[in-house]
Amino acid sequence: MDPITRTTRTKLNRLPARANYDREVIHSIIDDAIICHVAFIEDGSPFVTPTAIMRQGENVYLHGSSQSRMLQHLGLGHEACISVTHVDGMVLARSGFHSSINYRSISLFGRGHLVEGNQKIQLLNDFVDSLIPGRASDVRPMTPNEINITSVVEFPIDEASAKISVGQPSDDKKDYNLPIWAGVIPLEINSGDPIPDPQMKFPIDTPAYALNYMNGRD
Amino acid sequence: MDPITRTTRTKLNRLPARANYDREVIHSIIDDAIICHVAFIEDGSPFVTPTAIMRQGENVYLHGSSQSRMLQHLGLGHEACISVTHVDGMVLARSGFHSSINYRSISLFGRGHLVEGNQKIQLLNDFVDSLIPGRASDVRPMTPNEINITSVVEFPIDEASAKISVGQPSDDKKDYNLPIWAGVIPLEINSGDPIPDPQMKFPIDTPAYALNYMNGRD
Repeated sequence: MDPITRTTRTKLNRLPARANYDREVIHSIIDDAIICHVAFIEDGSPFVTPTAIMRQGENVYLHGSSQSRMLQHLGLGHEACISVTHVDGMVLARSGFHSSINYRSISLFGRGHLVEGNQKIQLLNDFVDSLIPGRASDVRPMTPNEINITSVVEFPIDEASAKISVGQPSDDKKDYNLPIWAGVIPLEINSGDPIPDPQMKFPIDTPAYALNYMNGRD
Repeated sequence: MDPITRTTRTKLNRLPARANYDREVIHSIIDDAIICHVAFIEDGSPFVTPTAIMRQGENVYLHGSSQSRMLQHLGLGHEACISVTHVDGMVLARSGFHSSINYRSISLFGRGHLVEGNQKIQLLNDFVDSLIPGRASDVRPMTPNEINITSVVEFPIDEASAKISVGQPSDDKKDYNLPIWAGVIPLEINSGDPIPDPQMKFPIDTPAYALNYMNGRD
């Protein structure tokens, strides 16, 4: 795939070596995420809202209640900025100044639109499997009313960039002589033992996709 | 402490039962966070950027390079919206419609300002200990140049709200009779074994704050 063309909004002013415009890299950072943060402007003020995200091909999708202020606004085609961020580790340098965080993030700029009809129904089912791979075939089918009161907004991955920071600290040359421990503390999201709903009326085995959730997403 | 007065921006239109305006609740959600997402408007477009966050009293602080487009903009007092989000679990309901995510989040609206002088130096040291409790006394002291080329922006916690979703799914009454597994998959961020910088020139024991990072932050 061709890399994404950079714009004034996606070009990194500082530390350009951390920037990446490869579609595969941007896709994998989105696919590893459960949620994103969406910024938009309403009544002249900036807003930012966390919400689940799903990617298919060269589009990302947000969904939720049709009453959601954010989805109503974005569905009208107002400009948005979407951020996905993974915090992968704390970087302990020999100075506070060079101490930092390892991360993988993407920024996506653009205007979305509402998806309707059969495509919306398909995407809502896909959302279940995107968030919990294997789950969609286990839940009861959607009702027409549920479909009506849920919105899906599509954004093309046109104007986007990734920013990645990885590895050990970059300390000042002379600081390497100091007797200070330096290194990286890796961070990751883990899933714990599933907690069955006490209101289940039947003995039902916990599904494999719940027992092994974070590994199953990889 | 008195709860925060709600405004049109912080009042929840939907699911108002999930909203919380208690300062203690808002503080604890911020204190559990490593990063936040900051939205702002530049040249008429929305931007959102992930960055580390620290709270002291009724203020939160962001910091970074003085060259940062975001910090320059926020330091001038332009409006911002700050979001902190913790994803605590996946909620597997008997329908896709009621499936959801457990989370704790805050939204903070306001205008910041640059902090200078001794307060800035103190805050930069505090940032090291806020992100890695116990680390500040181990790193080499900041240089005057490092202080000069770093900015700290302060935001008051005036217009803010928390939003919390916790517990088991709320399914449609008749769906409880379906033989579908339902429950919660808990999620948490864990720290792994610290990875020492291979460029250390002395044998130095890994500090306790690195060995036990996520527990030490609690």
